[in-house]
Amino acid sequence: MVYPRNKENISEWYLEVLKEAEIFDYGPVKGTIIFKPYGYALWENIQKILDKFIKEEIGALNSYFPLFIPEGFLKKEKEHLEGFSPEVAVVTYAGGEELSEKLIVRPTSETIMYDAFSRWIKSYRDLPLIVNQWCNVIRWEKRPFPFLRNTEFLWQEGHGAHATHEDSLKTVLKALEVYLKVYQEYLGIFGFAGQKSESEKFAGALKTFTYEILMPDGKALQGCTSHDLGQNFSVPFEIRFQDRDMTLKYVWQNSWGFSTRSLGALFMVHGDEYGLILPPKIAPYEFVIVPIYDGENNEKIDLFAKKIIETLKEKNISVFYDTSEETPGFKFNKWELKGAPFRLELGKKEIEEKKITLFRRDTREKISLSLENLLENLKKIEEEYLSHLLEKSKNFTVENLFEVNSYEEFKKVMEERRGFLSAFWCEREECEIKIKEETKATTRCLPLEFNEEKGRCIYCQNEARRRWLFAQSY
Amino acid sequence: MVYPRNKENISEWYLEVLKEAEIFDYGPVKGTIIFKPYGYALWENIQKILDKFIKEEIGALNSYFPLFIPEGFLKKEKEHLEGFSPEVAVVTYAGGEELSEKLIVRPTSETIMYDAFSRWIKSYRDLPLIVNQWCNVIRWEKRPFPFLRNTEFLWQEGHGAHATHEDSLKTVLKALEVYLKVYQEYLGIFGFAGQKSESEKFAGALKTFTYEILMPDGKALQGCTSHDLGQNFSVPFEIRFQDRDMTLKYVWQNSWGFSTRSLGALFMVHGDEYGLILPPKIAPYEFVIVPIYDGENNEKIDLFAKKIIETLKEKNISVFYDTSEETPGFKFNKWELKGAPFRLELGKKEIEEKKITLFRRDTREKISLSLENLLENLKKIEEEYLSHLLEKSKNFTVENLFEVNSYEEFKKVMEERRGFLSAFWCEREECEIKIKEETKATTRCLPLEFNEEKGRCIYCQNEARRRWLFAQSY
Repeated sequence: MVYPRNKENISEWYLEVLKEAEIFDYGPVKGTIIFKPYGYALWENIQKILDKFIKEEIGALNSYFPLFIPEGFLKKEKEHLEGFSPEVAVVTYAGGEELSEKLIVRPTSETIMYDAFSRWIKSYRDLPLIVNQWCNVIRWEKRPFPFLRNTEFLWQEGHGAHATHEDSLKTVLKALEVYLKVYQEYLGIFGFAGQKSESEKFAGALKTFTYEILMPDGKALQGCTSHDLGQNFSVPFEIRFQDRDMTLKYVWQNSWGFSTRSLGALFMVHGDEYGLILPPKIAPYEFVIVPIYDGENNEKIDLFAKKIIETLKEKNISVFYDTSEETPGFKFNKWELKGAPFRLELGKKEIEEKKITLFRRDTREKISLSLENLLENLKKIEEEYLSHLLEKSKNFTVENLFEVNSYEEFKKVMEERRGFLSAFWCEREECEIKIKEETKATTRCLPLEFNEEKGRCIYCQNEARRRWLFAQSY
Repeated sequence: MVYPRNKENISEWYLEVLKEAEIFDYGPVKGTIIFKPYGYALWENIQKILDKFIKEEIGALNSYFPLFIPEGFLKKEKEHLEGFSPEVAVVTYAGGEELSEKLIVRPTSETIMYDAFSRWIKSYRDLPLIVNQWCNVIRWEKRPFPFLRNTEFLWQEGHGAHATHEDSLKTVLKALEVYLKVYQEYLGIFGFAGQKSESEKFAGALKTFTYEILMPDGKALQGCTSHDLGQNFSVPFEIRFQDRDMTLKYVWQNSWGFSTRSLGALFMVHGDEYGLILPPKIAPYEFVIVPIYDGENNEKIDLFAKKIIETLKEKNISVFYDTSEETPGFKFNKWELKGAPFRLELGKKEIEEKKITLFRRDTREKISLSLENLLENLKKIEEEYLSHLLEKSKNFTVENLFEVNSYEEFKKVMEERRGFLSAFWCEREECEIKIKEETKATTRCLPLEFNEEKGRCIYCQNEARRRWLFAQSY
């Protein structure tokens, strides 16, 4: 079975392949999805990796805060309220009674966490306080799309409170760095790290940082965010600490999140006409073994497979032995569709030659090698596979990154090619709004490594000093 | 600091110790709690252990189903609806609009899962289908109590669909067996496994199995449940499969759950007047090292500590080095309160003698031994510690288990002692109701290993053939 995949039909490819690969099913409430086991296993693998980084590198401790937030909490920070009000789901009735105060089903947990922080933080000794939680959140979506825009999604949200703005900023950037590591070194996805514009930043933040990823159709996806909250929440929530000099000060805060949206990016970025292409450490099964039974050698094949499975499991490598009733050809197609990174074929030939046929999903190449050889080179093969994915993703992004110097050019490229457009912008919201109205493109970010230059805003021709990345977005 | 703990004041002890040990804080909505990092880490450890058993022993695959259930789904199974209606929280308003169909915030996921099962299951080849999810659930509590009765709690819920009733029952009992293993071999908590009466079973089940645990005040706690759902859900949800004989049949189902309530049992069962007593594999830190700095030997102490930490971490044993500014005495009290299983004291004496002073939280004994000695005997020490906890819990339960043979005796013991009362019951609901009205005691379970006997119902004197366990309950 072939699933044609090109710039124009990527949505259809995505929905069909995810359905056939048993990644998800639609939930009964519009905008919700069911993570089927093969889809959920991907999230479990990401969680394991990211959770370790969050604990060891960011120094956060896991915790769990309630799902229901009293409506009054949301009202404490004006921008936060305005940003989230249109998206919330509200519980008005519980335990057989109408509630006296409405409850918001958490869209994010700043307010409920910071109410607790105001009780927990008294002294500089209590700082930094960095907590994280893995949970579900609800944001009502008018135009849902599986994984990329769901009414309910899963994520981690980390929240830091620090004695100084400088310390808080370090955590903001550390979180971004950890997210980049997951995207590049585990998911093989290239993107641009940068800062959001005022209009695109998180509701209630001073600054928001992001990782912007180009999808095959030339639209950008915001892969994660890390926010410098300044003292925007600590003032209304009265989170103060007694500093070493005995004065009372407001804490400096940050929050950062990585969600199941990353799975959507993964599916979109790496697939081909045969289906998904999953990276080794994220795939539910890194190896799938397909026996080529012939009646005569079945027992030997099973024995050889058993040996391989034991050896791989010792190395903590996930493996699935597909002994189902279907034909080998059916299984080959199935596991290509499901994106298994490595397939091992075991039949008469392999038994006689004491070799294994290894199929790599990314290049679709077959190699014949001994078990010892496979084990010796496994790390190298995994790294090659992953860097091949990352390189392809990077090449595609760079090929679709256009430096434009006039609004005519901007409009032309955005209409004909889409992609990332690097252009001078005066950083006034009115130009940003006009550009969006006229081209559907928004500012995606100011890349972290930009050169201060002299230029003219692509729209109004006023002075501008930095090139921003523009794109249409998911 | 001493926290007096006895049968009469156990609730006060519990609330004070959990607050001081930084296990939880109250959420803003009545009945909800915040799992603080030290409390949440306990749940993470239980999850790791139980998740492995669920995958490897029960054969379930993890998945994730939506939080919101359309009201109509709940109405498909009459008993299920009646059982949960009084406890549900309802979303009536979302995305700025009143909803046309009300949404129930999941109290459990049978209905939303089985709606999907009806699409996923077509043939006997699709069976068994056993999925599990780790999530939050909402059940409105009129009389909340931290961990034991919360409006929102965390749990895993496993759901199996099988071709035969026999296969389904195997999964029901396998789940119960896995839960018992966690309670006995990891939490060190004794209890009685058994079957619930008709009035106490899960709303919609044919049969419910439970693990009933005696709390220090003589009341029983239901530690987990595993339900034989028969075809009660597969018929209304139309979950049918084509069997090998080509006929269409309804599947046989089961569901089973283990929740953060287990943490409440853990705290209640094992504490003493110095605070919590946590089991080695569940404690956030199995070892806490307290340096006894004296100015002269500080560097040597830190070096020795570093060596111990590295050695323990290699063995995957969690350890915390408490170098905070407080005095050693303060730290000793703090970590006793927090229930750390093993404390290592390192000071001048230990450096000079190349020995470590090991403090065991359960017996509060100190032993002096070399690092090599500690490592060699660690497994034995851990096992002794755990079996000591389990034995104490068992002894307490057996001491408070009373075989009673007349209703007078029943009432007297229940009033004076509480505990588990083993008594003949005719298994008619009217006697159960009367007993509850008159003594506050309910049937807790029919123990799995009971002897078929001839007896007379404790209440009505009619024939009875089995002794049930009665207790007042949480």
